[in-house]
Amino acid sequence: MLPPMTPKISRFLTESAPDTPCLVVDCDVVAANYDRLAAALPLTRIYYAVKANPAAPVLKILRDRGARFDSASIHEIKQCQALGIESDRLSFGSTIKKERDIAAAHQIGVPLYAFDSRGELEKIARAAPGRQVFCRFFMEGAGADWPLSRKFGCDLDMAADLLVQARDLGLDPYGVSFHVGSQQTDPGQWDLALGRTKMLFTALAGRGIDLRMINLGGGFPARYRADVPDVDDYAQSIMTAVTRHFGNRIPQMIIEPGRGIAGDAGVIEAEVVLVSQKGYDDPIRWVFLDVGKFGGLPETMDEAIKYRIEPIRAGAALEGDTGPCILAGPTCDEVDVLYEHHPYDLPLDLQPGDRVRFLAAGAYTSTYASIGFNGFPPLTEHYI
Amino acid sequence: MLPPMTPKISRFLTESAPDTPCLVVDCDVVAANYDRLAAALPLTRIYYAVKANPAAPVLKILRDRGARFDSASIHEIKQCQALGIESDRLSFGSTIKKERDIAAAHQIGVPLYAFDSRGELEKIARAAPGRQVFCRFFMEGAGADWPLSRKFGCDLDMAADLLVQARDLGLDPYGVSFHVGSQQTDPGQWDLALGRTKMLFTALAGRGIDLRMINLGGGFPARYRADVPDVDDYAQSIMTAVTRHFGNRIPQMIIEPGRGIAGDAGVIEAEVVLVSQKGYDDPIRWVFLDVGKFGGLPETMDEAIKYRIEPIRAGAALEGDTGPCILAGPTCDEVDVLYEHHPYDLPLDLQPGDRVRFLAAGAYTSTYASIGFNGFPPLTEHYI
Repeated sequence: MLPPMTPKISRFLTESAPDTPCLVVDCDVVAANYDRLAAALPLTRIYYAVKANPAAPVLKILRDRGARFDSASIHEIKQCQALGIESDRLSFGSTIKKERDIAAAHQIGVPLYAFDSRGELEKIARAAPGRQVFCRFFMEGAGADWPLSRKFGCDLDMAADLLVQARDLGLDPYGVSFHVGSQQTDPGQWDLALGRTKMLFTALAGRGIDLRMINLGGGFPARYRADVPDVDDYAQSIMTAVTRHFGNRIPQMIIEPGRGIAGDAGVIEAEVVLVSQKGYDDPIRWVFLDVGKFGGLPETMDEAIKYRIEPIRAGAALEGDTGPCILAGPTCDEVDVLYEHHPYDLPLDLQPGDRVRFLAAGAYTSTYASIGFNGFPPLTEHYI
Repeated sequence: MLPPMTPKISRFLTESAPDTPCLVVDCDVVAANYDRLAAALPLTRIYYAVKANPAAPVLKILRDRGARFDSASIHEIKQCQALGIESDRLSFGSTIKKERDIAAAHQIGVPLYAFDSRGELEKIARAAPGRQVFCRFFMEGAGADWPLSRKFGCDLDMAADLLVQARDLGLDPYGVSFHVGSQQTDPGQWDLALGRTKMLFTALAGRGIDLRMINLGGGFPARYRADVPDVDDYAQSIMTAVTRHFGNRIPQMIIEPGRGIAGDAGVIEAEVVLVSQKGYDDPIRWVFLDVGKFGGLPETMDEAIKYRIEPIRAGAALEGDTGPCILAGPTCDEVDVLYEHHPYDLPLDLQPGDRVRFLAAGAYTSTYASIGFNGFPPLTEHYI
């Protein structure tokens, strides 16, 4: 079941008719998504992936609910600090950190650091001595819409050695992490990852190290065009797998949802700028919008994320016969095409001045926007 | 011959050691590139493509040399206006414009508008009555590093009809435009396009319309990793083709260089954050930098633009044995990998804290940067 847009967002867009392109986030949905995850996975600590949407209203809601925060940079850590979030609720989850940024985080009091290489481990040992660290191992990410390269994580045998080295360097080898891929739609991927995790725990125990934590990463999906399993299905898959591999001795679990908390909460409204055809022998309809790849929708790259799109005229849903079209952004860049190989059906009488809404656009949109490519300003943001 | 980095930039980077990532632009190179184009193509009007690099120092240099300016949005038009550039030196070169933006440009006094569709033509006729318009027709873009989709331009027979309709709608059908593709390395592409242009001129003359202008678009390359023909070679190819097709009656010519003026003028300096391997059986070296796809290098998408890269330690070129590596950016996003399928050879002892310079990075970098993805601020910019 795909949820409709919330009445609050719909009312705001109709009554305020804000300038486009804009992102409108229903903060109640952020809260509800957090609560649902917390209820479904009561044994886990939820570290919100700040990068998904770092807007202050989002962070404040999660702060007040007791969330923890996974930071991708020292800038995000400072942002959380500025909002009064205690440093022991933060983790430095990037595996690619400057040593001076690690030192700054250590100074602030951040207790938890990610790594996946010897080089990173040495930096942490020098700049944040004694801190808890976890090693990210590599997962292939099958089943995820947003694919994984080899960029993050190392092989299992290297992970085991690195955790021993962490201890030898004076750090606290706290646990391991993996990421099954963002917008992961196959809960069985967690079982595979948790089996490998158990292997690591066993191997490390044999080398005198008692790992205590599993970071299950993110991957909780937002609801785009295709249907996805429910949060409870994910939770059940995870708990079944954890119990199968770890029995009664379940380590501390961490999850790092970003998209799964902020994605559903936001809608991008854009204006139709032009509808055109390219030739008499080329029946394809092009629909150009005032938002594109450089304005907040970079996850349409390779048409990876397929948003649900609703056409609007004068504040109301635009009905009528539909036909396929290519959707493109407003910039003078050839690559600023949103959907060409997966065309969308939109009303045949769609015209300039009509609007379209991209649903579930609350994550990985606002801060992705370019500072001003082609002179276009970033998305306006409304948190209601 | 690939030019070395200018001594001015080299001195600035060594003496100032600015925080990274940063873009340093040698304004003298901007001026020299403009002068060289102007000298090579004396019969053309040069409309600088503002989107390539809209920094005020760049625009001022070109303003003072008498350049004209091709704008991709009303924002760029207003920016030129704020710098005291007369409105009759501006064109609104986007084929995707909001009607209210066309009206604003008309009010400001912008004389020249692009279109490639009936819908756009109707908007211009309503919002900027009587103005000069030119129709962009489609070119396949063979030979260009940055590929062309069907996003811009229409078929030739449609272009002919649209120019007649422009007259019937009370506009001035001034000419045609095409774009052979950015970073175009085959000068012969202009001959093909000019042949089609001549066909349009002839067809329109038969319908009572005297076209007077050819907009040759951009496509003038910057010097990346591969060598490219000289500006004079391009100019000669263009003039030979124009003369062949138009004889002594050469229409007003326009070019829209962006990359060809600003590209060579800039260097991005970045810091090495991490050097790592992924496994004992995986010898590939990963080099992570503090700049990536979201920080100002989006043209590495699909590894399209291959910058020349120079490793630096303590302000001097880093010598020594080299080996291949994958280059990646600092964000927690899998797609933030710069070069994986076209690996770069870099020194084997490259370490965190070393720096690398991306040469010819003056165009399509600064304003492409995200406003703050993963919390990382945009590129710092220095114009010297």
